[in-house]
Amino acid sequence: MPAINEILSVENPVFRSYMFYGSVLVVKMLVMSLLTARQRIKNKAFANPEDAELNKVKVKVHEDVERVRRAHLNDVENILPYFLVSFGYLLTNPAPFVAIWLFRVYTAARFAHTLVYAVAVVPQPARGISWFAGYLITGYMAFRTITYFA
Amino acid sequence: MPAINEILSVENPVFRSYMFYGSVLVVKMLVMSLLTARQRIKNKAFANPEDAELNKVKVKVHEDVERVRRAHLNDVENILPYFLVSFGYLLTNPAPFVAIWLFRVYTAARFAHTLVYAVAVVPQPARGISWFAGYLITGYMAFRTITYFA
Amino acid sequence: MPAINEILSVENPVFRSYMFYGSVLVVKMLVMSLLTARQRIKNKAFANPEDAELNKVKVKVHEDVERVRRAHLNDVENILPYFLVSFGYLLTNPAPFVAIWLFRVYTAARFAHTLVYAVAVVPQPARGISWFAGYLITGYMAFRTITYFA
Repeated sequence: MPAINEILSVENPVFRSYMFYGSVLVVKMLVMSLLTARQRIKNKAFANPEDAELNKVKVKVHEDVERVRRAHLNDVENILPYFLVSFGYLLTNPAPFVAIWLFRVYTAARFAHTLVYAVAVVPQPARGISWFAGYLITGYMAFRTITYFA
Repeated sequence: MPAINEILSVENPVFRSYMFYGSVLVVKMLVMSLLTARQRIKNKAFANPEDAELNKVKVKVHEDVERVRRAHLNDVENILPYFLVSFGYLLTNPAPFVAIWLFRVYTAARFAHTLVYAVAVVPQPARGISWFAGYLITGYMAFRTITYFA
Repeated sequence: MPAINEILSVENPVFRSYMFYGSVLVVKMLVMSLLTARQRIKNKAFANPEDAELNKVKVKVHEDVERVRRAHLNDVENILPYFLVSFGYLLTNPAPFVAIWLFRVYTAARFAHTLVYAVAVVPQPARGISWFAGYLITGYMAFRTITYFA
């Protein structure tokens, strides 16, 4: 393992890429809340009585809201563990070219996942493939981290 | 970016503040499980057949339980991405005064959110405002991190 | 606090243990997605219309799927905050023996939790105890981090 001050440095293109794409993914996750709000307002489907009252409707469940919420939860279940394991992977001295492209492909795959799941619904296997690309990358990074620190 | 050993140090008041308020938020999240358990027991509303049997009732859904669970999920969707992006923000050499106050306001906003959502229900816009304060801070930190590491 | 380059180093057995068990827990969380998929296919219970159509069934909810999903959400609610607070704990100069065993017991407790919750259902208090062991460890690490950085 190289010295930590060389890894966690803005001079290190792998770390710069990790931070850049990581923050872009956080912004993507923040946008999920807006997509949910848009569907709640459009379909007048609120989960809390106090929100429903404000809109003079009853609490109800609407499939378009639930779809965005499932996509959001899928982000939570996948992107957050990815952050942790990609930090470990960063320390295993990976080839910069490989590491940076893994960050890029992961980010693109998660954007694609949200698009085909919650924005413009596309038939399978579009969602399956985009999800699996991110899943494989996370698994690979976990494997590399486990063997490095074992 | 300053050297990493100067940033990640107990001598650095910004890092000390990041760690202190971060851990306080983790404790706040841990408490959500107790709030859920309290509502489950009070309303005899259990999600698992084995828990319901133990209490000699049937599995059921109760609005007071669901409300705490929504507040908990909101924490997961907001606080966990905040941790990641506030770590990046920490490295962008922010003015200590600004950074420490952002950590404080964020923490206060999330405590307020839980209070008005799941402890003593207050009409809107109390929940909306407390949620949005945290949302804005996370978005600002993501923006700063993205531009710094781009 | 020791210098950060001594803590975040593959030479430091506490950090090596933190990274190793952390990545193992990420793999455990990744497996939850496979367990969910298995139950969805076995019970032909899909949440999305496009998935149900592919299997020529209607969207439906099945208890065996929901059980795995609850176990997965419990991981998200517990393991992800643990990662954050155990990183803080790592910096508080803990006795290596104590820290490494806390990582081990936490990991074992979460594996046990998944096993008795979502793989082979065991009556309470098996799930309660395995959950509480992890909860206590996270709370202890949060307490140590808060007092250290206060």
